[in-house]
Amino acid sequence: MMGRTHGVHAEPTTFGLKMARFHASATRAIERFDRVAAEVETGKLSGAVGTFANVPPYVEAVAMKELGLTPQPIGSQVLPRDLHADYVQTIALIGTQMEELATEIRSLQRSEIHEVEEGFAKGQKGSSAMPHKRNPIGNENITGLARVLRGYAVTALEDVTLWHERDISHSSAERIILPDATTTLDYMLNRQTGILKNLGVFPEKMRHNMDRTYGLIYSQRLLLSLIDAGLSREQAYDTVQPLTARSWDEQLMFRDLVDADPTITAHLTKAQIDDAFDYHYHLRHVDEIFKRVGLA
Amino acid sequence: MMGRTHGVHAEPTTFGLKMARFHASATRAIERFDRVAAEVETGKLSGAVGTFANVPPYVEAVAMKELGLTPQPIGSQVLPRDLHADYVQTIALIGTQMEELATEIRSLQRSEIHEVEEGFAKGQKGSSAMPHKRNPIGNENITGLARVLRGYAVTALEDVTLWHERDISHSSAERIILPDATTTLDYMLNRQTGILKNLGVFPEKMRHNMDRTYGLIYSQRLLLSLIDAGLSREQAYDTVQPLTARSWDEQLMFRDLVDADPTITAHLTKAQIDDAFDYHYHLRHVDEIFKRVGLA
Amino acid sequence: MMGRTHGVHAEPTTFGLKMARFHASATRAIERFDRVAAEVETGKLSGAVGTFANVPPYVEAVAMKELGLTPQPIGSQVLPRDLHADYVQTIALIGTQMEELATEIRSLQRSEIHEVEEGFAKGQKGSSAMPHKRNPIGNENITGLARVLRGYAVTALEDVTLWHERDISHSSAERIILPDATTTLDYMLNRQTGILKNLGVFPEKMRHNMDRTYGLIYSQRLLLSLIDAGLSREQAYDTVQPLTARSWDEQLMFRDLVDADPTITAHLTKAQIDDAFDYHYHLRHVDEIFKRVGLA
Amino acid sequence: MMGRTHGVHAEPTTFGLKMARFHASATRAIERFDRVAAEVETGKLSGAVGTFANVPPYVEAVAMKELGLTPQPIGSQVLPRDLHADYVQTIALIGTQMEELATEIRSLQRSEIHEVEEGFAKGQKGSSAMPHKRNPIGNENITGLARVLRGYAVTALEDVTLWHERDISHSSAERIILPDATTTLDYMLNRQTGILKNLGVFPEKMRHNMDRTYGLIYSQRLLLSLIDAGLSREQAYDTVQPLTARSWDEQLMFRDLVDADPTITAHLTKAQIDDAFDYHYHLRHVDEIFKRVGLA
Repeated sequence: MMGRTHGVHAEPTTFGLKMARFHASATRAIERFDRVAAEVETGKLSGAVGTFANVPPYVEAVAMKELGLTPQPIGSQVLPRDLHADYVQTIALIGTQMEELATEIRSLQRSEIHEVEEGFAKGQKGSSAMPHKRNPIGNENITGLARVLRGYAVTALEDVTLWHERDISHSSAERIILPDATTTLDYMLNRQTGILKNLGVFPEKMRHNMDRTYGLIYSQRLLLSLIDAGLSREQAYDTVQPLTARSWDEQLMFRDLVDADPTITAHLTKAQIDDAFDYHYHLRHVDEIFKRVGLA
Repeated sequence: MMGRTHGVHAEPTTFGLKMARFHASATRAIERFDRVAAEVETGKLSGAVGTFANVPPYVEAVAMKELGLTPQPIGSQVLPRDLHADYVQTIALIGTQMEELATEIRSLQRSEIHEVEEGFAKGQKGSSAMPHKRNPIGNENITGLARVLRGYAVTALEDVTLWHERDISHSSAERIILPDATTTLDYMLNRQTGILKNLGVFPEKMRHNMDRTYGLIYSQRLLLSLIDAGLSREQAYDTVQPLTARSWDEQLMFRDLVDADPTITAHLTKAQIDDAFDYHYHLRHVDEIFKRVGLA
Repeated sequence: MMGRTHGVHAEPTTFGLKMARFHASATRAIERFDRVAAEVETGKLSGAVGTFANVPPYVEAVAMKELGLTPQPIGSQVLPRDLHADYVQTIALIGTQMEELATEIRSLQRSEIHEVEEGFAKGQKGSSAMPHKRNPIGNENITGLARVLRGYAVTALEDVTLWHERDISHSSAERIILPDATTTLDYMLNRQTGILKNLGVFPEKMRHNMDRTYGLIYSQRLLLSLIDAGLSREQAYDTVQPLTARSWDEQLMFRDLVDADPTITAHLTKAQIDDAFDYHYHLRHVDEIFKRVGLA
Repeated sequence: MMGRTHGVHAEPTTFGLKMARFHASATRAIERFDRVAAEVETGKLSGAVGTFANVPPYVEAVAMKELGLTPQPIGSQVLPRDLHADYVQTIALIGTQMEELATEIRSLQRSEIHEVEEGFAKGQKGSSAMPHKRNPIGNENITGLARVLRGYAVTALEDVTLWHERDISHSSAERIILPDATTTLDYMLNRQTGILKNLGVFPEKMRHNMDRTYGLIYSQRLLLSLIDAGLSREQAYDTVQPLTARSWDEQLMFRDLVDADPTITAHLTKAQIDDAFDYHYHLRHVDEIFKRVGLA
């Protein structure tokens, strides 16, 4: 399929490679969550200012064991809030990574691109009158909820600085953001999993879109082929450039102009030209990348 | 041009109407800036805790007159910081409104849509080898800077709460965000103005894209025309629906299927069908909207 | 009472003047809310992409009249979201202004200051065993909720940029932040009103705290009085400075050292010294400030 | 020294224990920084869309080795931005943890508390006329800069979601926030280190402040002692409660009222009363806590 930078055609890539990037992103997200989740599974039972004045440490040890929590080595009246801020920030980051995938799908589902489609199931139809109107609402929903999680991260950071051995300003905020951040992320994860399971993917459309820029994405390799065939860089450039310009301005397929150009056909065989226009060249290292991320 | 919701074709609109929306947005932005700018053009000279203990009020009056500032009726050692937070929040909102326009242009410049193009000037060419690779970097730049302004708004809000008659915690932050928020917005405004002045707009491409969904956007009006022509809603639906489905599945122009359908041609003249497929119907109220926003 | 900068004694002020500052802040908050509330009391009924294609403008006029909303002159499928972002940002700013007052009360209620006390009602007692343990939990609650509102403002800004004529990403976020921001502010306003109605204020403690820095806050006026009495600035300084240093280091009341100093008593009568130590001098412009904010 | 919750006296603690909490916080901060710093010390050299189309993987391997960076297993045109968001969020969290300490010092330096003092060096004097006016400006500076870092975190999160194989919207923002977040944190660390090295600590004042609530913090232990001595809970309560109330209302030292109470003196020896009023009881587990955080 077409790889795009700035929303504009760049070089060929594959849908699998694109998904492998998000797989790697999800792997990082899981590692982050496991870390912070373990760090907030902690507790304290050391009294009003953290001195164990009225409750000796062994009581804390027993209680934490009962609760399956790690005793926090030191605390005030409460646990240090940077633990919770780290937790909420990490949830906000995970939500943002999910938004990146949601945005990718929303973009690829645009009417003019339409390489993938959310919630496509065999036999399923959209509106009878407007079958084209199939909207990526699940991904839009995830996008919006990621914004909510980012807002919670701001609140969580402000909750860290308490006065002396504790003030209770963090409490009214945490009662909202701690459960809501956690359950919102859980909801998003379930929804995104469902979206990916039912994602419609249209390979023909991907191949079709690659020609939307008239095959000009192959002009660079053609230039190099001509140089290999003996032309000077100047000659090669002066041969190719006018064709690319004309192809773009007159919306003609670049390959047609190339096949009709005497200078090119005099230096390159049809097989050589075919090779210059073969996108597989761009994909010859893809399997290696899959190996690198443990997906091969 | 095509109006899009969820990134998917919805109903026809016009580029002028789209720009009129951003014109109205800019008008709101200007009103907001004028208000907060006037509110921060204020000063105080009432001593260490705001009591005028060592400097009588008339000195403040004279000094503010000299400086062209409104005397703030009451203050501590400093002006109330909610004035400055309001100022920075407003700048962040204006930057965000500019990002909305920047995102619109970035989307319309996508290779598959390509209805507008940033920095297009007569005779100007992109990369010789890849003329299609013209990137909306100016709009991407504005998009990123809008994120910076939103970050400054968070800082500005936290600067409001000072201890008693003043602590100086706001100072280290304001020295960064007040000048940088202001100059960043100024830079963005200059850059966006330049982008709009040199924006390439491609009407033919807009019209072409309207047919990307095979003309199915007209199916609803055709349905109504058939009902007007005497068919029952059921009959009309059973006539149109299969054609829309076939058009979508087989990627055939809806109009061709309609012209070949005996039921439809038996009830509607070519003129009536033309009318159902005429996007001008959707635009008959556009001039009125221009009047509403003072652009007619 | 003592005016404090950096948390450290600066110059005398009055509790009324302090409250007048918050009254002026509340007045600004009300003006801001009235403005944005009026701006979001708007609606649109102009169809799927804002063209009135299937519903003529007069229907919108009638519907808005019914709903008591101002028709928005132009929109996409939805109202422009900068209106809602402005609304939530304003609520976040108002909450922050309320936090400033809550923080002031929390500070003044500290055991070592204890000039005011939350929720003090005649006859009411704190914990029987620890009557000193009366905590400003209402103000701490407001402080925490202000952080939540600031988080919502971040989300609201991100909701402004929608794709083309609308994507629905803002919806999942707004369903949370619009009602919650509004109801949270309402709750905070009710709670803070109750706190102010029942606020315990201890004038004797305020006067007592003014002497916590041994009366050194009067040393500057004494210096000036000695100069007025004929001493050179150097002589005056060399007379006063050692006394201020000794008062601070040995924790002795500055006035006692002054009364025992032959140089000072040789140049200033007891009445003149009394005058130099009279905090009323600092307050002679207070009434004028009350007039400036419409509270006289 | 006095342990405080809600800004109000709670139970005795020690300054060392308070500092040990911040030492543990700093240890967590260092671990967090080491982790994210290692994660962003990565690079990629895999071409315009991450396919290695024109540069084979071994070139990346060599280049990364040269640069001392870990090759990122997969990327688009750029590295995944969640790595950088994690980095900036972590810096914002570390800055917030530093703000917590800065706020503690600012609070303890208040004129009415004055248990510690910033930048106190032997022989150094404050303003000659106002020796009491020594302000915690370094800690206020750190407090403000922490707000700036929190703003950068908001921007960094928004920079994660790029279009397809990369858009450049993150660049304009990262050019500001990546270097500024890093250098600002470095500045804050240097400044806070200097503050701690020169911190003035006043043990006498700490002991003195413990009596500011008339010794009522010992009333609970006295109650328990009376019960141990044979009184019923009701009797003990009816004996102690009136004394605590009177001590608070009339601002009399609780111990004096206790010593003058026949019921108490009839049941407790002077040694037993001394023991109930001995704050060392609250500190008997402090050494153990120091061991838990590796500071013993």
